[in-house]
Amino acid sequence: MPRFTPPDPDFEMKVRDSFARQTFMRTVGAILAEVSPGRCEVALPWREDLCQQHGYIHGGVTTALADTAAGYAAYTLMPAASSVLATEFKINLMAPARGERLVARAEVLKPGRTLSVVRTEVYAENEGTETCIAAMLSTLICLRGTPDAPARSG
Amino acid sequence: MPRFTPPDPDFEMKVRDSFARQTFMRTVGAILAEVSPGRCEVALPWREDLCQQHGYIHGGVTTALADTAAGYAAYTLMPAASSVLATEFKINLMAPARGERLVARAEVLKPGRTLSVVRTEVYAENEGTETCIAAMLSTLICLRGTPDAPARSG
Amino acid sequence: MPRFTPPDPDFEMKVRDSFARQTFMRTVGAILAEVSPGRCEVALPWREDLCQQHGYIHGGVTTALADTAAGYAAYTLMPAASSVLATEFKINLMAPARGERLVARAEVLKPGRTLSVVRTEVYAENEGTETCIAAMLSTLICLRGTPDAPARSG
Amino acid sequence: MPRFTPPDPDFEMKVRDSFARQTFMRTVGAILAEVSPGRCEVALPWREDLCQQHGYIHGGVTTALADTAAGYAAYTLMPAASSVLATEFKINLMAPARGERLVARAEVLKPGRTLSVVRTEVYAENEGTETCIAAMLSTLICLRGTPDAPARSG
Repeated sequence: MPRFTPPDPDFEMKVRDSFARQTFMRTVGAILAEVSPGRCEVALPWREDLCQQHGYIHGGVTTALADTAAGYAAYTLMPAASSVLATEFKINLMAPARGERLVARAEVLKPGRTLSVVRTEVYAENEGTETCIAAMLSTLICLRGTPDAPARSG
Repeated sequence: MPRFTPPDPDFEMKVRDSFARQTFMRTVGAILAEVSPGRCEVALPWREDLCQQHGYIHGGVTTALADTAAGYAAYTLMPAASSVLATEFKINLMAPARGERLVARAEVLKPGRTLSVVRTEVYAENEGTETCIAAMLSTLICLRGTPDAPARSG
Repeated sequence: MPRFTPPDPDFEMKVRDSFARQTFMRTVGAILAEVSPGRCEVALPWREDLCQQHGYIHGGVTTALADTAAGYAAYTLMPAASSVLATEFKINLMAPARGERLVARAEVLKPGRTLSVVRTEVYAENEGTETCIAAMLSTLICLRGTPDAPARSG
Repeated sequence: MPRFTPPDPDFEMKVRDSFARQTFMRTVGAILAEVSPGRCEVALPWREDLCQQHGYIHGGVTTALADTAAGYAAYTLMPAASSVLATEFKINLMAPARGERLVARAEVLKPGRTLSVVRTEVYAENEGTETCIAAMLSTLICLRGTPDAPARSG
């Protein structure tokens, strides 16, 4: 059962709408896998055009997934008319990002009126096994009264 | 004049070869602007398909540029038969990444036989002005005796 | 049951000896509470002379406890003739450090021949309740063939 | 000449008063060396009771100095009726903290209404030479309408 009660009952739609506006997530082929109060999961199927010099997924892509999952985990616990921004994060890249798929799993450690702290891990799925390849610790800020996007018409 | 003397006189070619193998840098349209001992600069023209939900360049892209610049700044000071990996970094995202172009400028603070510490800033160029939008502090590891790529034939 | 098998069967004595040589831990009154493979706990009774300007325990003290617990958690998994150093860490200070006692609990996420990654949380105990006040993510390096202290005579 | 104009003309007194209330700084013997708009310097003469297991100054002490300097650098640019808290920081410990004296020098990278980003370096002075032993990147929050201390009578 969830540890947190989201102030916005439509938190999942709010997150999915916002994710859908991230053109970069579309460019890399990332998928918003799961959204629940204080948690978010973003997945990415391996692609050859997302690699660094050794043929593994680029650390920047791993980081982008983790950052996105962290932001939306925090956003699930923010009010309706607000938006979320990452102010900073730190990531440890612990193993090469190889495998069929990466999954970033974020969990809110401390929600806050202004700042939230989120912990995220990224796993690589490879032939049925899952390896933790990265650990992130992030600070997110809630911008109150700043809707996440321009009003949608129609 | 440079503060550091690279052990590999071909440091720039080594860095440029390695950068050219990063498929992700090609995917986002990043350019290896400058390479000098202990320093590296990576630039990225704005593109609509690299954005987050508010229409700015995604924090993951900003981070990928900074991470790449940091890695190659450290790599300029590593021996010929070695490769470089980021073990961790922390980034503060201080202002929205908007403008015609982003530039990540990395500088080695402390080179080391095993670990190097690099400081990187990312600037957004917008109608002739430059704003510092992010600051990163990274640790890079030198893998000795591990060439950066498979032997090139021909 | 422990997730890790320490290469040095005397890991606990090694850690306790090393902690006993930390004059700063004595100065602040910190106690090495628990040591097990890949884990370490350091506690600190509240003292008025360890505070910041608002009368809470200083962030530097909270950090010192977490850093020490992280180092020794990693050290439990290092070989006998080695020593451990923190190369870097990041900490989020999430709530004021008030209460009768602080406890830092560190757990190895990824042990490594050279680098280990450790996650630490600090809790404040206050009238029977425990609040998580800080979260740290650290990188520790193993110095092989570098004993932790001068040879003890007698 | 200073890059920043402090909103509180009494910024130096405000900082010195606050520093004087930090019992932990007194306990370790730290000195508030310099305060100017957006900058702060905290120094610490070497003491045997502040060491880690190898006889160098404990990383937690180095961090406490840097954290304190960072907080007060940010505080110089905050309004009179406010207080400052570190929300998070990351530090790279690059060389052993040995020498007669440590000096932490902090500089605001980005002041903000709510969050400020500060960069700090710690130097060890040893027989007339100065070595950069640590680099920190911090986020500080301004608590508006929250005075730093109880009202002083008299």
